[in-house]
Amino acid sequence: MTIPLRRPEAAGLDTGLAVRLACRRGAFAGQTSGLAPGHVQGNLAILPAELAFDFLRFCQLNPKPCPLIGVSEKGDARIPALGDDFDIRTDLPRYRVWQDGKLVDEPQDIRSWWRDDLVAFVIGCSFSFEEALLQDGIPLRHIEQGCNVPMYRTSVACAPSGPFAGPMVVSMRPLKPADAIRAIQVTSRFPSVHGAPVHMGTPALIGIADIGKPDYGDTVEVRPDELPVFWACGVTPQAVIAAARPAFAITHAPGSMIVTDLKNSRLASY
Amino acid sequence: MTIPLRRPEAAGLDTGLAVRLACRRGAFAGQTSGLAPGHVQGNLAILPAELAFDFLRFCQLNPKPCPLIGVSEKGDARIPALGDDFDIRTDLPRYRVWQDGKLVDEPQDIRSWWRDDLVAFVIGCSFSFEEALLQDGIPLRHIEQGCNVPMYRTSVACAPSGPFAGPMVVSMRPLKPADAIRAIQVTSRFPSVHGAPVHMGTPALIGIADIGKPDYGDTVEVRPDELPVFWACGVTPQAVIAAARPAFAITHAPGSMIVTDLKNSRLASY
Repeated sequence: MTIPLRRPEAAGLDTGLAVRLACRRGAFAGQTSGLAPGHVQGNLAILPAELAFDFLRFCQLNPKPCPLIGVSEKGDARIPALGDDFDIRTDLPRYRVWQDGKLVDEPQDIRSWWRDDLVAFVIGCSFSFEEALLQDGIPLRHIEQGCNVPMYRTSVACAPSGPFAGPMVVSMRPLKPADAIRAIQVTSRFPSVHGAPVHMGTPALIGIADIGKPDYGDTVEVRPDELPVFWACGVTPQAVIAAARPAFAITHAPGSMIVTDLKNSRLASY
Repeated sequence: MTIPLRRPEAAGLDTGLAVRLACRRGAFAGQTSGLAPGHVQGNLAILPAELAFDFLRFCQLNPKPCPLIGVSEKGDARIPALGDDFDIRTDLPRYRVWQDGKLVDEPQDIRSWWRDDLVAFVIGCSFSFEEALLQDGIPLRHIEQGCNVPMYRTSVACAPSGPFAGPMVVSMRPLKPADAIRAIQVTSRFPSVHGAPVHMGTPALIGIADIGKPDYGDTVEVRPDELPVFWACGVTPQAVIAAARPAFAITHAPGSMIVTDLKNSRLASY
């Protein structure tokens, strides 16, 4: 069994609340991978209310890349379903602020950018199912190598909704066939964090020309006795929002997720 | 194994498309239970766009009573995820039209009521999981008795969203303990049609004072060797919309659902 290395700066950040409070007081601005083991982490997208229905419908239409775990009321920084002591404006390590599709700020706190017409969307992320795979004894190469998972734009189009459209982005984990079969079983139990894989085997069938050249993340080796296994990825909604070039949007900074009070094990459907 | 009786008027209505086309040409205006075996049927709610985000978020917050299986674009009568040849304005047997919370029309066709600002929501219904239970050999008393399933308002509050709030409504099926355990396993595989039960045993724990007096549907006997098993029910969003008294809304008439091209078996999560 492989376990992600705990980083020195993670000391004491063992719960969702501890991570959020550290972020809130400006004491933590790093990556959240490996923090608060067992707790659900999520991707963040904040959009003006005029786009909120179309984006929420986009997530409903595309649940594998966009598994929603929380949506705020308009103008409300709380998401009670994800934690009681919770402020989406301060509780992430770092944010990205976008205007007309351009990155304009990368702050630790978005209180100065907050508006009464904003809606926050939190989308499940692969950390949850990776924890389940590791606990099941399935080795994950990018974690062994200490790098980011490789991610690829595919030729699979998401179902569009209003201005939101674009290809599905997938992450890839090379697995021996028996581990791939078990990984399908394990991740099927977690539909709210991308669920079962969307493809395995020949990358070209989903429009990936060169498995050695990911569009995001790092390259990892696929050995002759392994299959590349592809999961829908939370970068999809980020890419779709970027392509839609809304007048205003806020997202998490890469790797700096919102850490919730939800337990990964409670996401299991069965 | 118990199988719902096929009704004479159901002859030839063996697919979702066949039912929709019969409704579209005005040839069928009855109940859809037992039609198009194996195909997913859904509850319908149509609301003005100004309420669409709040209602979609209500469904996201309350997935057990409100499992969304399709949402239209604003003003668009099609929902491609549910069928190619599909018109939400004509393809149900009968509709109910509401103004300020009052029932004003019960037509077979809503083309004259349609507006460019309407959004249609289709929510999974218990017919799908009942088919899975019957196929598994679990007897369902209301089907044996040829009556409606009993439904109850509970003391369990849904998570509110904008004007949408209210108690969860549940349906009840009496089951022997071994069948109840198996029913939990079977329905857990179908999260998009209410999923696992929300309660079993003592009705008073969820605010049901008298199991013999359902708020909707018919009374069925719970025998001494049985547990009452409660599932979240698609009447919940109907009741919540009625309580919100929107200026305008359209729903299906009770028992007259939209029949889709989706197969029940394809809803299984695992």
